[in-house]
Amino acid sequence: MKFRRSERLVDMTHYLMNHPRELVSLTYFSQRYQSAKSSISEDLVIIKDTFESQGIGTLQTLPGAAGGVKYIPKVKKEYAEVFIHHLCQLIADPSRLLPGGYLYMTDLLGDPQILNEVGKHLASAVSDRDIDVVMTVATKGIPIAQTVAHHLNVPFIIVRRDNIVTEGSTVSINYVSGSSKRLQMMSLSKRSLKEGAKVLIVDDFMKAGGTINGMVNLLAEFNAIVAGTAVLVESEYEEERLVDDYISLIKLTDVNVKESKINVAAGNYFTDQSNFLYGK
Amino acid sequence: MKFRRSERLVDMTHYLMNHPRELVSLTYFSQRYQSAKSSISEDLVIIKDTFESQGIGTLQTLPGAAGGVKYIPKVKKEYAEVFIHHLCQLIADPSRLLPGGYLYMTDLLGDPQILNEVGKHLASAVSDRDIDVVMTVATKGIPIAQTVAHHLNVPFIIVRRDNIVTEGSTVSINYVSGSSKRLQMMSLSKRSLKEGAKVLIVDDFMKAGGTINGMVNLLAEFNAIVAGTAVLVESEYEEERLVDDYISLIKLTDVNVKESKINVAAGNYFTDQSNFLYGK
Repeated sequence: MKFRRSERLVDMTHYLMNHPRELVSLTYFSQRYQSAKSSISEDLVIIKDTFESQGIGTLQTLPGAAGGVKYIPKVKKEYAEVFIHHLCQLIADPSRLLPGGYLYMTDLLGDPQILNEVGKHLASAVSDRDIDVVMTVATKGIPIAQTVAHHLNVPFIIVRRDNIVTEGSTVSINYVSGSSKRLQMMSLSKRSLKEGAKVLIVDDFMKAGGTINGMVNLLAEFNAIVAGTAVLVESEYEEERLVDDYISLIKLTDVNVKESKINVAAGNYFTDQSNFLYGK
Repeated sequence: MKFRRSERLVDMTHYLMNHPRELVSLTYFSQRYQSAKSSISEDLVIIKDTFESQGIGTLQTLPGAAGGVKYIPKVKKEYAEVFIHHLCQLIADPSRLLPGGYLYMTDLLGDPQILNEVGKHLASAVSDRDIDVVMTVATKGIPIAQTVAHHLNVPFIIVRRDNIVTEGSTVSINYVSGSSKRLQMMSLSKRSLKEGAKVLIVDDFMKAGGTINGMVNLLAEFNAIVAGTAVLVESEYEEERLVDDYISLIKLTDVNVKESKINVAAGNYFTDQSNFLYGK
């Protein structure tokens, strides 16, 4: 069956959105739609222009016989500002305050629209890096890792604080939780990570950085490489942090339980211009 | 800025894919693209036809002033057959066998392409039901719950087997794990679920159904309503199962550790024709 341009545009948009960062050959599309490569190329120009103007992302075209096209999710700076401002407002809601100064964020970590944006923003920030796997620690990091992995189109793996029989043999390490200074254990299934893999560490929350530092140490046991660290929320921390190089969407600057006040600001996301499709 | 049809088709496809089951008014699209409603209606016909012919889903149009259009993810039977057959082959790999007859499935639960299909298939199976929330139990159910929630465009909540301080006050119950007959505890944050909510229970694996039955009992504590149960894999179980009404994609019929053999078949997904966009 031959496709008309309008049908090709709808199906290609769907296909590209479901296969981010994957090189798709023009031959594939040409056969899928029984259409000439020249028509496919014209379609891709329309899609690229629309993706860029609407802040969906961009298409990278690789010429030559082994070439093709890749959809790269990338946010526009003006959209990122709106989204991060919206997140700040949600997080600053004083009803989130729990005993001990903890913040209730479970609703945000279970909202598919918010997760989709968080994943797209964080993936956008590392879009020029070579990443094989996203890694997080159970439980609250999982939704973030899953959405980032979706937008990067790579697998994600889950470090656990318990030891469970359905993971096979595991590698475990002890680590010191940075802020509470408690000794804890984390383990990762042996077969879930290959030697030399480039790993993006992801978590929902970072204070002293102890948990993330634990994951860095665990990666060393696997001879794997840290390709970056990305968190949804970082919290102000007076002492020296165990992790310096990271991306954060949101920064908790002050939590005052007595006055029921939560102060939040944008994280360091905006300091690196390469996170954005364009913007100033 | 006025949009041409080709640009509208690309952006509308992206928009609808990111907002499944959400009623979008023609006015919204008409303003977004500075285009007449009659043009938008023509666009939607093209998108609907392409979504249906390509097995992406369908568009439901609601007429009238409060009307609009809704994208309903829905699989085609022939695609579901191919996907479930592929999953069966992956799961039958004898290298998944772990001591005790457990199966290693961590790689599948961390593969965004597989998760996306699993989520779309399970959401498709319940597309005619009224669902407010997806619920699962930590840890392995989370990726399934998240992808199903994404395709249903509703929040998901996570029942925990530990008690943690960042969830606020919780409701806990004891339950008996069906196959091991051990008494266990599960808890859910009080503020994560509203009274009367219609809840789809989701998990990666079901044998006797003890864990799922635990979630059913927990929902009763919240005066919430079970809207359905969906699992990735069900396992053959000789005694009476604690849960009768469920959807499964895959069925483990036999695991023979001695002979290193895993027998799998399609789950009960194919017995209900309403799971599919069309097919025979």
